Amino acid sequence: MDFFSDNTAPVHPAIWQALAAADAVDHAYDGDALSQSLDARFSALFEHEVTVVWSSTGTSANALALSLLCPPYGGILCHEEAHIVLDECGAIEHATGGARLLTCPGNGAKLDVDILRARIAKLGKGVHHTRPFAVSLTNVTEYGRVYRADEVAAIGAFCRDQGLKLHMDGARFANALVRLNARPADLTWRAGVDALSFGFTKNGAMNAEALILFDPAKADEARRRRKRAGHLLSKGRYMAAQLHAMLEGDLWLANARAANAAGAVLAQAAGDRLIHPVDANMLFVRFSDEEAARLRAQGFGFHPAGPGAARLVASWHQSEADVAPFAAAIAAL
Amino acid sequence: MDFFSDNTAPVHPAIWQALAAADAVDHAYDGDALSQSLDARFSALFEHEVTVVWSSTGTSANALALSLLCPPYGGILCHEEAHIVLDECGAIEHATGGARLLTCPGNGAKLDVDILRARIAKLGKGVHHTRPFAVSLTNVTEYGRVYRADEVAAIGAFCRDQGLKLHMDGARFANALVRLNARPADLTWRAGVDALSFGFTKNGAMNAEALILFDPAKADEARRRRKRAGHLLSKGRYMAAQLHAMLEGDLWLANARAANAAGAVLAQAAGDRLIHPVDANMLFVRFSDEEAARLRAQGFGFHPAGPGAARLVASWHQSEADVAPFAAAIAAL
Amino acid sequence: MDFFSDNTAPVHPAIWQALAAADAVDHAYDGDALSQSLDARFSALFEHEVTVVWSSTGTSANALALSLLCPPYGGILCHEEAHIVLDECGAIEHATGGARLLTCPGNGAKLDVDILRARIAKLGKGVHHTRPFAVSLTNVTEYGRVYRADEVAAIGAFCRDQGLKLHMDGARFANALVRLNARPADLTWRAGVDALSFGFTKNGAMNAEALILFDPAKADEARRRRKRAGHLLSKGRYMAAQLHAMLEGDLWLANARAANAAGAVLAQAAGDRLIHPVDANMLFVRFSDEEAARLRAQGFGFHPAGPGAARLVASWHQSEADVAPFAAAIAAL
Amino acid sequence: MDFFSDNTAPVHPAIWQALAAADAVDHAYDGDALSQSLDARFSALFEHEVTVVWSSTGTSANALALSLLCPPYGGILCHEEAHIVLDECGAIEHATGGARLLTCPGNGAKLDVDILRARIAKLGKGVHHTRPFAVSLTNVTEYGRVYRADEVAAIGAFCRDQGLKLHMDGARFANALVRLNARPADLTWRAGVDALSFGFTKNGAMNAEALILFDPAKADEARRRRKRAGHLLSKGRYMAAQLHAMLEGDLWLANARAANAAGAVLAQAAGDRLIHPVDANMLFVRFSDEEAARLRAQGFGFHPAGPGAARLVASWHQSEADVAPFAAAIAAL
Repeated sequence: MDFFSDNTAPVHPAIWQALAAADAVDHAYDGDALSQSLDARFSALFEHEVTVVWSSTGTSANALALSLLCPPYGGILCHEEAHIVLDECGAIEHATGGARLLTCPGNGAKLDVDILRARIAKLGKGVHHTRPFAVSLTNVTEYGRVYRADEVAAIGAFCRDQGLKLHMDGARFANALVRLNARPADLTWRAGVDALSFGFTKNGAMNAEALILFDPAKADEARRRRKRAGHLLSKGRYMAAQLHAMLEGDLWLANARAANAAGAVLAQAAGDRLIHPVDANMLFVRFSDEEAARLRAQGFGFHPAGPGAARLVASWHQSEADVAPFAAAIAAL
Repeated sequence: MDFFSDNTAPVHPAIWQALAAADAVDHAYDGDALSQSLDARFSALFEHEVTVVWSSTGTSANALALSLLCPPYGGILCHEEAHIVLDECGAIEHATGGARLLTCPGNGAKLDVDILRARIAKLGKGVHHTRPFAVSLTNVTEYGRVYRADEVAAIGAFCRDQGLKLHMDGARFANALVRLNARPADLTWRAGVDALSFGFTKNGAMNAEALILFDPAKADEARRRRKRAGHLLSKGRYMAAQLHAMLEGDLWLANARAANAAGAVLAQAAGDRLIHPVDANMLFVRFSDEEAARLRAQGFGFHPAGPGAARLVASWHQSEADVAPFAAAIAAL
Repeated sequence: MDFFSDNTAPVHPAIWQALAAADAVDHAYDGDALSQSLDARFSALFEHEVTVVWSSTGTSANALALSLLCPPYGGILCHEEAHIVLDECGAIEHATGGARLLTCPGNGAKLDVDILRARIAKLGKGVHHTRPFAVSLTNVTEYGRVYRADEVAAIGAFCRDQGLKLHMDGARFANALVRLNARPADLTWRAGVDALSFGFTKNGAMNAEALILFDPAKADEARRRRKRAGHLLSKGRYMAAQLHAMLEGDLWLANARAANAAGAVLAQAAGDRLIHPVDANMLFVRFSDEEAARLRAQGFGFHPAGPGAARLVASWHQSEADVAPFAAAIAAL
Repeated sequence: MDFFSDNTAPVHPAIWQALAAADAVDHAYDGDALSQSLDARFSALFEHEVTVVWSSTGTSANALALSLLCPPYGGILCHEEAHIVLDECGAIEHATGGARLLTCPGNGAKLDVDILRARIAKLGKGVHHTRPFAVSLTNVTEYGRVYRADEVAAIGAFCRDQGLKLHMDGARFANALVRLNARPADLTWRAGVDALSFGFTKNGAMNAEALILFDPAKADEARRRRKRAGHLLSKGRYMAAQLHAMLEGDLWLANARAANAAGAVLAQAAGDRLIHPVDANMLFVRFSDEEAARLRAQGFGFHPAGPGAARLVASWHQSEADVAPFAAAIAAL
């Protein structure tokens, strides 16, 4: 069984149905009825007027978001192990026209106001230096930690005070939300978030991510930048259909709960091996090379995470029963 | 019935089957078996070692191709009505870091050596001026014309002589190829083409385009630029599956033949109304406003193409019988 | 005698004195007293609060100006023979991050509202198309014509109506102004100009150009973009000194009058050979190859300007007496 | 007396003479005789065929150099306190189209092979990660340390082995060279340096820096990128004249020796207060706030360098006698 990534999971049956239903002839690009109704649907979900700009990857959503929040000559405060720093091959620099990632330390890949304040204090203030324009958080973080709404709100208040915009990379936003049992609004605009990369692909879709802009005045710019980046699909209705299906009946929440529950089973088995507290569906555990090899020999797949450590990711399609054998194998080490 | 664009067509049943088959858990990004076998499959198709870089839009394929062939300070010779000029919101400028499109005239959106030579003659030669590094052709052109292999080869030879790289925007490459009954190699690398944007979405796929690089030394750069542009999909196997299915049993050729045949039925009906000879599945016809309105009132959808003109696009899923009513309605005007 | 360009002229004696006076030790970059007083001095000159950003080339001033007025995904309406189109090697594309120059025709390299309106009418309006954000005029134009204040104001009003910003490339702004006997304000902000590239190098300085921003809210962005482009000089006081010296006692106007007067002598001699009316210090004349060769053999230097044509530029250091021999030689052809 | 920066120093008398001599009318841009002879002159100096591209700032030289050595999707290994990191407002990102600075620690702002190797080991190797293409060293470093030729050569050999290009930011190259009594070739191409930003402004020029490219095949690209960045001056002869004058009679070496000698006087006075060994003309010393205030009250100017520390820079125009009072004041603290 595979715990490499929630990206290796299949597509949810409801998504397949929605895709099939989108097969009727309709307008190209985002002129179809499914696409045209997304702004309203997400506005209802977030209890706020939003603009949704969807694309097929989280990297493109992050890059588009930050190109809207930071000029080419600016900087973006973020964690030194953020996905945008380590795993996107410079997508942010490309999309922004050369803005700089101003990296910060922080346990569990989490930032807080003190960390941000200390980083800003080290920056020169004049034209010779990179001026920060935005902060980017990842929630769930790259180490599986969740920012609570009050933690985001503290950062959001700091951002407003400092004249900074706030972006949330929510590739696993659903997993964070169900963990907190929070409302989408509480974890985003009410906490000062300006733009959210709202991930669906890891959570059961095929290839659909939504950038949520809480300032609809950005809509025209965002849509032009998406087109320019080659991320406006000609048969866009197949992507819009996925987003509708994910929201329908709160499928996105159910899937995230399933993934988190599977993760919790593994976390319990891992016990003292855990490197970080487990808030969602992603675990970092201590395995010796020999232990990792033994688990792999039993058919369990996962990525290493540095010397003596491994990353385990549970997915929406793995029930607690499904992961029980892996949990047992870990406990038996 | 809809003749707006081949982008409004549904997904071919064989693609749906291939997508479903790709639903098994496999590695993320392009680490899966389907992705890993694409270079070999396209190399066989083109009778040449190629690197394939797939993405979800033609714009991204064009932009990636030209970013590989032209530096930021260079220029790209192309037709003044090329898709990259009029319909991609500056994607080429974005991907290349600011290269300039050096536009040329030409009937039916076709270029030839004389046109290119005349355009180059007008360019200054020093550091103050934009130096051309590449030529981009569209085949089928934006006006539905097809470049024959010998026409491409003449431009290819000119390019080699001038130190220029040659890109082909083949959003409807299949339609050109079946029209000519040519081999893929003849219309591309044997004719001097360095990179081909090979379209599948208009021809029956959901969202899969392939950039074919005839110089595999470009592979690493191309894959990094794709990632950086946010065009490497996390569940990439669903895109690779589409490409395999399109090639399987020459589905891509069959679909293109169907679209061209449907286009030919319309062309015959249009007769003297045709603005350009019809080489493939796209027609430009003279309709007065009153005529256009009459056709639309009968349920036929199509885009205007300037005053007194319309663009009609036939698709792979429209049989000759399907389009007969529209042909009759045109003939009856 | 040399009529190649006003760039081949020497440095004015008053500039040499100002440079020598700037040799005292003072703060680096623009922290010196000369630099710090430039905003106030130019604000007085323009009867408007302005921000001045100086750099060593007109290309950098144009590029900086347009990077402030047009986003990467936008377009800039300008003449097809504008300096920014033909002679800056893509500097605008580089500085803006890939904005596109939307070129227009126009006699004598002049634009007007009808030309702009017609060009805009041809542009698509959706996200697929390049949306114009700015207009750039050159005054004196590349063919030596001058826009009167009312002509600029008509374009300025059109721009405001269309939501466009207006840039003036004033490499020879002084020559235009003295021709019109206008006030700097009349030809700029009162006529709707948002940013002026105000040239001094051709007019007697060594290497000093001033970008005048009529919206001081742009100051921080402008200064950061200048630094980022490598155009903030470490010994900036030597550049600031030149600008002060040019304004002192209206040296800039006197020099421009001298250049225009010299140009007028040549224009009178050229008579029917003139291709465009002569408004300032630059002439385009018809010379056969044989005639051009004869003049060159007599020691007169000038650039060709296409078949059977030549460009003659008079400079501030050429008195009417100085150019009389050339005028006589032209008249004697 | 001013120890803020060698940028606050005046222009050397020999430079003034050379500028005056350049006042004769000659071709514009770099078409003049002075400009045309620079490649040969620097080739002789470096005992190697080089291309020289001059511009008015060190930032532009660094940015141009790195845009030639690293693609937009690549990374540049450099010290975390390098000038290109802290003091150029993202100029490298702008010029390269978004390459990333991969920062490293190191005492005295010096890198070595172990540091570079450790940094590279932490970088992911796939398309998701930033691949390094170049290393940039500063010699004299930002903390006043000098890389010896053998230290550069060790890094150069490592770079060749790793497929990396090597850039040297030589804003104070002269000061490093005279300290080592080395030949220019030994500290550059013989040690594996591909491009040198060779500073003259701090060393007595007005505004002239030379980018030295040891691979002349880069000449066309370099000159186009310079033009595009707005760094080709229209009256370029005034910059070329400065470079000639600096080389004439080894003025550049004499000035650097003077600055280093003045620095040595201060270093001796500072004694235990020194934070780094003093290799050239720049010192970092421990001053309490009270001490710093006392010195400033005596008329000595210098920048703070963090809490309890100050940076002192001696310049070419300060003789040992000139700086003696400051040395005495420091000793008397």
